[in-house]
Amino acid sequence: MLVSPSSLRVFTENIFLAIGCSSEHATLAADVLLRSDLRGIDSHGVARLSGYVRLWEKNRINAKPNIRIVHETPTTATVDGDAGLGLVVAPFAMQVAIKKAELYGSGWVSVRNSNHFGIAGYHALMAVEKDMIGFAMTNASPLVAPTFSSERLLGTNPMCYAFPAGQYPPVVVDLATSAAANGKLEIAQRLGKQVPEGWIQDKNGGYTTDPHALKTGGALLPLGGDRDHGSHKGFGLSATVDILSAVLSGANYGPWVPPFVAFLDPPANPVGQGIGHFLGAMRVDGFRPVDEFKSHLDNWIERFKTSATVDVSKKVIIPGEPELEAETHRATHGIPLVDAVVTDLNILAERFGVDTLKGE
Amino acid sequence: MLVSPSSLRVFTENIFLAIGCSSEHATLAADVLLRSDLRGIDSHGVARLSGYVRLWEKNRINAKPNIRIVHETPTTATVDGDAGLGLVVAPFAMQVAIKKAELYGSGWVSVRNSNHFGIAGYHALMAVEKDMIGFAMTNASPLVAPTFSSERLLGTNPMCYAFPAGQYPPVVVDLATSAAANGKLEIAQRLGKQVPEGWIQDKNGGYTTDPHALKTGGALLPLGGDRDHGSHKGFGLSATVDILSAVLSGANYGPWVPPFVAFLDPPANPVGQGIGHFLGAMRVDGFRPVDEFKSHLDNWIERFKTSATVDVSKKVIIPGEPELEAETHRATHGIPLVDAVVTDLNILAERFGVDTLKGE
Repeated sequence: MLVSPSSLRVFTENIFLAIGCSSEHATLAADVLLRSDLRGIDSHGVARLSGYVRLWEKNRINAKPNIRIVHETPTTATVDGDAGLGLVVAPFAMQVAIKKAELYGSGWVSVRNSNHFGIAGYHALMAVEKDMIGFAMTNASPLVAPTFSSERLLGTNPMCYAFPAGQYPPVVVDLATSAAANGKLEIAQRLGKQVPEGWIQDKNGGYTTDPHALKTGGALLPLGGDRDHGSHKGFGLSATVDILSAVLSGANYGPWVPPFVAFLDPPANPVGQGIGHFLGAMRVDGFRPVDEFKSHLDNWIERFKTSATVDVSKKVIIPGEPELEAETHRATHGIPLVDAVVTDLNILAERFGVDTLKGE
Repeated sequence: MLVSPSSLRVFTENIFLAIGCSSEHATLAADVLLRSDLRGIDSHGVARLSGYVRLWEKNRINAKPNIRIVHETPTTATVDGDAGLGLVVAPFAMQVAIKKAELYGSGWVSVRNSNHFGIAGYHALMAVEKDMIGFAMTNASPLVAPTFSSERLLGTNPMCYAFPAGQYPPVVVDLATSAAANGKLEIAQRLGKQVPEGWIQDKNGGYTTDPHALKTGGALLPLGGDRDHGSHKGFGLSATVDILSAVLSGANYGPWVPPFVAFLDPPANPVGQGIGHFLGAMRVDGFRPVDEFKSHLDNWIERFKTSATVDVSKKVIIPGEPELEAETHRATHGIPLVDAVVTDLNILAERFGVDTLKGE
């Protein structure tokens, strides 16, 4: 079904309102999810809405959180999300970082007691709008085995860096630190295809290309895949995200991170509160005049875009470019939703007495 | 030859003094190189000394730089390295970052007009000694092709994150954003071995496992290797390092970064000055009390170290652990130097009238 962004937005807001979110939070949370669907990252948009509702039913998401700064210096802070939606906690924290950057050049916020925050790019781009460089990371439910391990100890722990350009759209580097995101496995499962080697291992840590291996105790592999191809680097990056997001803030880390799915209980012996994020903003003009930076970043982009390619039919893709193309297209042409998601959303609609979704 | 750290240190200092470095700079530069040799990163230690001298001969390294802050806010700064050794420019910049962090919680310095800075870990660990989290990145001579490109547009652009622990040594995540470092290719060349697929491509961007492919127009590949295995992520990380280090500071970026070797001239149309670094420090107690952070990081380390492994003879390696083991061992037992390096150093010794190296 093809749905207009505006009707999907109203629908999503209504669901958040129905579970008790304030109007401000419902609008913001819907904006984060819509941005993901617009940008073509279907796995992180409204497809997750029913999952958030199930966590709310289990009292693992607080619809009326008292999000607050619990510790700070002029340029650093720890924020407690009060078990709120990460979709509203992370923008709060990013606003804190931006305000500190306005005053002192940079701002850095580690967040505890939060939940899934949607796409990292949303938060990092908040800084870009202010001519700042944005940083956004989060830890996540353990699905990834460190190099040599047979255990799932880390999430797909994404890191995002976003930079304002001039003539060109912002450069948005946004990546899971695993070899492949879980969403890519799900696509292979639906299509009945094998996945490339180096994405996953089976429950004994053995070689597999079966996309169902995660359901039988297997694990995702860190970016790099195996030791020879640099999986220790993917592990190190994922560890960095985990430490900045959770060891620094007082959230759960490693295997203690609560699962995103409501049917799995959180570990009985938490080492912190909820999941953790790390957000940052640095003023470009803290380093050089904004127009100078932007014109050099434009030059950087142009040089890479026009690079000679191995296959003449392909171009070098500037990080963030495909997402912006999707956003431009879907804003006009509508957001395609697969049947399973439409069904899922309309069950929510009936339950909460919200108008069901209608196609374009 | 096995050389004592103290005699290798004196030797290295003497060479830096001989090319005109101040006594303070010679001591510091030697300390950075020795630390690399002690930590087992032989490619970045005294093996590079003659390379620095050749760049000095070509007036591309200034032995008496006036390193200075050219732009700043309370927590950000741009440093001009005046074409000095990166070995002294980067520690200067890190001291600036640390001082800002002491006053305001965090400090961030982008550096232009510098040269090769040795191991990133040295600089990041300066922050760890102050109970801060250290960040160190640098761009480098172009050897890496972005995903889909047949051109070398990026360096191996390392990123390093270092965290202070309690009972355990610091966690030091220090990685080239390419699939493999150039030093690993050199080892394969010496041994006459093929390298794993996904490390390099030939001059047309085609498949190769020939470690000599770089000499005939080939390129290193970004971490991930190919698109299916996430090379766009390695490219994105490398781009991040390049932008933070050079587009932000006014250094050269991408294919304009000057080569580290003296026999290749820098590009005729520079877009900035020298190479760029990015250094940062954040006070741990800007987020939570230091003892709390350290005890949780110890818990993190312990959980990962004792993880079940695929092969019972292997353990999960905590980032930074192997380097510290090497440092402890070599501090006592001496630093092994291969014959080619000893010969190279003793040619320098004779030329500058410095005592030649003697084994233990």
